[in-house]
Amino acid sequence: MPARLEGRLAAPDRPSPGDHCPIDRALAVVGTRSALLLLREVSYGTTRFDDLAHRVGISDAVASARLRELREAGLLERRPYREEGQRTRQEYVLTASGEELLPVLLALAAWGRRHTDPTHSPRFTHAGCGAEVEPEVRCAAGHVVALDDLVVSG
Amino acid sequence: MPARLEGRLAAPDRPSPGDHCPIDRALAVVGTRSALLLLREVSYGTTRFDDLAHRVGISDAVASARLRELREAGLLERRPYREEGQRTRQEYVLTASGEELLPVLLALAAWGRRHTDPTHSPRFTHAGCGAEVEPEVRCAAGHVVALDDLVVSG
Repeated sequence: MPARLEGRLAAPDRPSPGDHCPIDRALAVVGTRSALLLLREVSYGTTRFDDLAHRVGISDAVASARLRELREAGLLERRPYREEGQRTRQEYVLTASGEELLPVLLALAAWGRRHTDPTHSPRFTHAGCGAEVEPEVRCAAGHVVALDDLVVSG
Repeated sequence: MPARLEGRLAAPDRPSPGDHCPIDRALAVVGTRSALLLLREVSYGTTRFDDLAHRVGISDAVASARLRELREAGLLERRPYREEGQRTRQEYVLTASGEELLPVLLALAAWGRRHTDPTHSPRFTHAGCGAEVEPEVRCAAGHVVALDDLVVSG
């Protein structure tokens, strides 16, 4: 059963949501495999351009374009660093906005673990207690919400 | 602070994860804006090809290719239906696997609502109690998990 639509969204001739849809607005920033995998890598602590491009498996040109978009959208920032005797380089770190994309990455990981060939999937656990981490959809009152319990009103 | 990596993932020369990464495996199926927006539309109860293409704002050719991929990956299924005096047509509905992508869609919506221009965002609420729905990352023991509380071991 699908979600229940209310308000303008329930009209039979409702228009294409476009900019009114926060999912679409998010995808304008992170709607590519390379953007999401770069965010995964920075979330895992990779900071250097060469390592990011290599671990995501993309060309330097794609990595460069995507990292610039993610900086312009405020998910990543660049910081200078310098190792002894080397020239100054730039490293990439998440902003607070970038850290808030974690539920998207973990929801993709949970779906991938369950619904694609489970070759060597890593485990995601809570550092504090060791329990498995899995994103759930709950309402502010704490109820688990399945698709047919969801109301979308716009 | 990034997540903490353990096991093979913690090696300084760790390889590109590729197929070993469930996020990447999920993105092989739903790593495009058009795939995710088609899943949004079917989650909202849109079933007909023409409505799906129109509401996502994509060409018939792209909609057709993407819907076929989503069926082949087991997220959607096609069912015949027939209105009085019309020829038989096909409608698209989510499979159980497709319904389990809801946390990804709602996590994108939550990020989009918070971090992009909030023009007319719809509200997502729980039909049972009316409270707002927002995906959270918790461990099985119920603790909220931020990025620096996360351990990824592979």
